[in-house]
Amino acid sequence: MSYPETLTVLGVDPGTASTGYGVVASRGGGLSVVSGGVIRTAPEEPLERRLGGIFAIVADLLDRHEPQAVAIEDIFFGRNVRTAFAVGQARGVVLGAAGLRQIPCFTYTPQAIKLSVCGSGQAPKDQVQRMVASLLGLRQPPEPDHAADALAVAICHLHNAAARLGAPA
Amino acid sequence: MSYPETLTVLGVDPGTASTGYGVVASRGGGLSVVSGGVIRTAPEEPLERRLGGIFAIVADLLDRHEPQAVAIEDIFFGRNVRTAFAVGQARGVVLGAAGLRQIPCFTYTPQAIKLSVCGSGQAPKDQVQRMVASLLGLRQPPEPDHAADALAVAICHLHNAAARLGAPA
Repeated sequence: MSYPETLTVLGVDPGTASTGYGVVASRGGGLSVVSGGVIRTAPEEPLERRLGGIFAIVADLLDRHEPQAVAIEDIFFGRNVRTAFAVGQARGVVLGAAGLRQIPCFTYTPQAIKLSVCGSGQAPKDQVQRMVASLLGLRQPPEPDHAADALAVAICHLHNAAARLGAPA
Repeated sequence: MSYPETLTVLGVDPGTASTGYGVVASRGGGLSVVSGGVIRTAPEEPLERRLGGIFAIVADLLDRHEPQAVAIEDIFFGRNVRTAFAVGQARGVVLGAAGLRQIPCFTYTPQAIKLSVCGSGQAPKDQVQRMVASLLGLRQPPEPDHAADALAVAICHLHNAAARLGAPA
């Protein structure tokens, strides 16, 4: 696998309660983690404060690390309208924060991410996490899940950056 | 109907393509329009730019008019997951902009808005628009629809402000 010379990507797994993020940089042919973690919001807080908090932290990540792209996992909601609406709200503030800074956003399906990271669109979750750790030179799989998912979608975008296979958000 | 002495409310009807807004103030027992219109975004623009644009304009309205509350119409999506996701994204940036400024948000169902403005939860759209015009002292019903809907939800919140009947966002 050859990576773009220098490219920094913010991967995001958006959700109102917990938004995973991972900043991954490709430099000199390898990948490394710049920052990663989870933005947690308190369920007893009003929704607007929770979304404002997610916006503020994503905006800070964008200003601090200046990624050239944001990569977001696209979830399939089935018929769950309520979940789609809730995730949509969290995704909206992430996209809005990026759009204000003119940073392009790309989305990838879970299958595309698994295929890109593991070579199989059906790879189980623990295999994806081990491969993420291996590709990023981490001693153990990243935790929690949301942070690992965010790192995975960032890696997926770096893998696809040359071919530009990501769909626009 | 007696209104709160002085209260300014931003009503919003969120959508990616077109977000209606209306700033309504109650002063001295009457209502007046401070600002109203529609934020339109170009369909050829990337989604993140469109959402960033909505965020920027809502943020500007909040900073300029300093409303004490934001009121949003709550839509029933039925089984339309795609629409729920899209509207959720636009709603997210509106809520996020308010939450960052610690301005509380309230939502009202279409039935609650019609009941509050017209006295009947089943009032037809043109009747709502005529009542909005009458309550705000406008010569003719506000246009376009999204702006009228935003003014209606702002009026609904002002009617309910004393009783605090609005649901948290």
